[in-house]
Amino acid sequence: EPNVTVYGRLNASFERVSVGSGGSRTEVVDNASRIGFKGTEDLGGGNAVIFQIESRVRVDGGDAVALASRDSFVGLKGSPGTLRLGRTLGPVYYATYDYISMHNHDSGHSSDALLSMATMGNSTAAGGRMNNTLWYTSPSVRGFTLDVAYALLDEAPKSTASKQTPHHLGIVGAYDQGPLHAALSYASTQSTTNLDTDPAVRFNNDRAITFGGAYTFQSFVLGGLYERSTKTTLGDEKSRNYFRLAAMVPMGAHEFHANLGVAGDYSDTSDTGARQYTLAYNYNLSKRTKLYAFYTKIDNDSAKTTGGGGAYSFMGTAAGLDNSAIATGIRHNF
Amino acid sequence: EPNVTVYGRLNASFERVSVGSGGSRTEVVDNASRIGFKGTEDLGGGNAVIFQIESRVRVDGGDAVALASRDSFVGLKGSPGTLRLGRTLGPVYYATYDYISMHNHDSGHSSDALLSMATMGNSTAAGGRMNNTLWYTSPSVRGFTLDVAYALLDEAPKSTASKQTPHHLGIVGAYDQGPLHAALSYASTQSTTNLDTDPAVRFNNDRAITFGGAYTFQSFVLGGLYERSTKTTLGDEKSRNYFRLAAMVPMGAHEFHANLGVAGDYSDTSDTGARQYTLAYNYNLSKRTKLYAFYTKIDNDSAKTTGGGGAYSFMGTAAGLDNSAIATGIRHNF
Amino acid sequence: EPNVTVYGRLNASFERVSVGSGGSRTEVVDNASRIGFKGTEDLGGGNAVIFQIESRVRVDGGDAVALASRDSFVGLKGSPGTLRLGRTLGPVYYATYDYISMHNHDSGHSSDALLSMATMGNSTAAGGRMNNTLWYTSPSVRGFTLDVAYALLDEAPKSTASKQTPHHLGIVGAYDQGPLHAALSYASTQSTTNLDTDPAVRFNNDRAITFGGAYTFQSFVLGGLYERSTKTTLGDEKSRNYFRLAAMVPMGAHEFHANLGVAGDYSDTSDTGARQYTLAYNYNLSKRTKLYAFYTKIDNDSAKTTGGGGAYSFMGTAAGLDNSAIATGIRHNF
Repeated sequence: EPNVTVYGRLNASFERVSVGSGGSRTEVVDNASRIGFKGTEDLGGGNAVIFQIESRVRVDGGDAVALASRDSFVGLKGSPGTLRLGRTLGPVYYATYDYISMHNHDSGHSSDALLSMATMGNSTAAGGRMNNTLWYTSPSVRGFTLDVAYALLDEAPKSTASKQTPHHLGIVGAYDQGPLHAALSYASTQSTTNLDTDPAVRFNNDRAITFGGAYTFQSFVLGGLYERSTKTTLGDEKSRNYFRLAAMVPMGAHEFHANLGVAGDYSDTSDTGARQYTLAYNYNLSKRTKLYAFYTKIDNDSAKTTGGGGAYSFMGTAAGLDNSAIATGIRHNF
Repeated sequence: EPNVTVYGRLNASFERVSVGSGGSRTEVVDNASRIGFKGTEDLGGGNAVIFQIESRVRVDGGDAVALASRDSFVGLKGSPGTLRLGRTLGPVYYATYDYISMHNHDSGHSSDALLSMATMGNSTAAGGRMNNTLWYTSPSVRGFTLDVAYALLDEAPKSTASKQTPHHLGIVGAYDQGPLHAALSYASTQSTTNLDTDPAVRFNNDRAITFGGAYTFQSFVLGGLYERSTKTTLGDEKSRNYFRLAAMVPMGAHEFHANLGVAGDYSDTSDTGARQYTLAYNYNLSKRTKLYAFYTKIDNDSAKTTGGGGAYSFMGTAAGLDNSAIATGIRHNF
Repeated sequence: EPNVTVYGRLNASFERVSVGSGGSRTEVVDNASRIGFKGTEDLGGGNAVIFQIESRVRVDGGDAVALASRDSFVGLKGSPGTLRLGRTLGPVYYATYDYISMHNHDSGHSSDALLSMATMGNSTAAGGRMNNTLWYTSPSVRGFTLDVAYALLDEAPKSTASKQTPHHLGIVGAYDQGPLHAALSYASTQSTTNLDTDPAVRFNNDRAITFGGAYTFQSFVLGGLYERSTKTTLGDEKSRNYFRLAAMVPMGAHEFHANLGVAGDYSDTSDTGARQYTLAYNYNLSKRTKLYAFYTKIDNDSAKTTGGGGAYSFMGTAAGLDNSAIATGIRHNF
């Protein structure tokens, strides 16, 4: 048995992207394609060393990406649980948001554009991932697991007198047994972004509490989440509610998907909400490969600028612009 | 059977490079070394999913290169043909130019320095490759195949009113059976490079028609191509003829090569032609590994600046400079 | 048997880093993690082609790194020895410095911070490695081997009239048999760094002679080295002595380490010495995986600025600053 397994995914689509009433463009879009190397060393007694080196790859015209730009870590696994040290999106994202994007997990224009960035450390480094993360996952007890992730963000404290370090804390309690997956999570990200103007304020504090899950019924799957997020920046505090609903109806090799996200106004500003609608059809050529088509739309309030990914950048980022995409693509796991 | 095969090539040489009458330098040159990951998923009924992620690597002092910087795609293969979506040099280059560089396929100072860049989308992104390419290859019928590639170039149209998108179109009809390989191709690249000065002109139109091939005789191989290329830029149009001849004489593990390219003047400017001569000897240590030596020279007309690759940059790019290289190297496929 | 083997190492630690009397910080540090692809093609008769493509990867917040950024080459191996062409740290470093960093080979804050950079070509390209290296290793005769490496540095000569090329030459004579490993090496690096001010001086000449080795006693291993280095720059010449001692006591799965480096003043300037102390404990979970903890300190003289790696950069590089780290980590080979 070799020490290393090579795995990955290629996911590319041909899309017609439209923004506001202004224009549209045909694009090839790479949807989170990747290649990874992972392995497990059995230490005996139920203990093992695990590692993973995963890199984003692109087959479209997007920016080049580095080795190990996605979840990459080394860790220990045993009866007390699993401990990893490295880079990750974090357990909060995986517990609910990723889970109910059933039509096309964490990829492309139809991926969740409304979630609180606190869930992933607000990080712009390494493709939105958090470096320097220590992540513990408990063993599963009657379907229950606990995850705690603590990440040192790649920022210097604004004051050297500060004893606090910019960091992310993510905690997830999850239940996964039979037809039910459910999770309750808390994410807190204390960063220093844009704080230069007031060194007395040492941190932004960006938090989110999320509850959600999915239930597999006889002939369909239903998922949903509720997120309450709060941003404290320079003495200002604002909160928001965000809901998402997802449904999948499989029929043999066919899958029919609907996905709806509704983000409310921030507590202190009107017209800052947005809605995201997606209808999708997947045809499974095999367990590893699917063809898909989707229509996705983001409907921004007049003071909101949510975009659905880099593809929309050709039309600028003026507030209130709606944007949509019709796409057909292929996704292959290897 | 694993889902992924790791493959690649390392090709490095020790070269004495001379430019004009001015100077010479000893260099180590990496000649298109690469590593790739590819796989095929059999879907039954003669259908399959194919993928490839190929990256340039360098063992010399050249610029670092990104993951998936070479041909990388995901595709479907079946009785109606093969359809790929991703990044590539394109079928036009592979059909003739690559094919008759028998001494050292598409690599180094001795590679084809005179071909029309229209054949590869004029792209400077991703190592000269085209992103966002949809590439269809027909099945082979009595040795005949048809290739059509359409690539969206990574450029914005100069005018948002423009309904046209900068793109490359490549069409190849090829015959490959017994001792004869022959191909007729058409390449058209519509880009916006250097068009800022006149927004009324929406595109450069850079085209090439190429006919060429190779024939394997009893004791040698003969190849050749003729290219007629036309550039339309800012209202100006110019054309050029370009010929290349190649011969290989194998004797056991030995190969003797001669390769000659002659590019004529552009139709509107004299002294813009160039000639490229290469003499090479290859010794095959095995099917996968060869040692080689070559002498290659580019003879530029007084108004022409063709260089044979980045190695010559130490002498600037003044027009009319001739340049040559004596090299010995090793090429290993894995 | 496949043509390619995937291998590598992940090494990450959680560290408390302190600098001078000024401050300290908790950091996750990636210690030379890497992934590589290598292979051997048997040519028969004891001859083979070898290749390696090795890349640095990071799981902390450090800068992204390129494909093939570590030792990468293609070569031939046979009864006359081994010849490689490519990128490497060079045989001088591997012969002694690397060898006696037994607690944590060539990685992290506890790695050798005092050695002469002449040993690795003074290169800042490709992670301190030398590109364009031709490296010969003789066969082993009664335990004796000879290594000669010649690298063309990625620098232009300051004068085009100069017939000299910036280069590194490394020569190693080594003995490796039974309990004794010993090596005598000479490194000479002729670079043009900072020479703009005086074109009459064509090269810095940075040299080091090193003698060192390790002896495996019944219950412990003892290592040491002595380096005499000389820098000639712009007519100025200065020399320095540097000693290092290393001891390891293995007890079953446990290893206890002590490592001490003492660099004297440069011949022309007082207070330019430094000392590096490391105490380490390793616990081998298996042959491939260890947990470790260490304390390491660099004690700089008042005019010396040695740092123990990028992690200290948060405190600037004022001369005379001492710095230290307490770390715990995991190292896994795959």
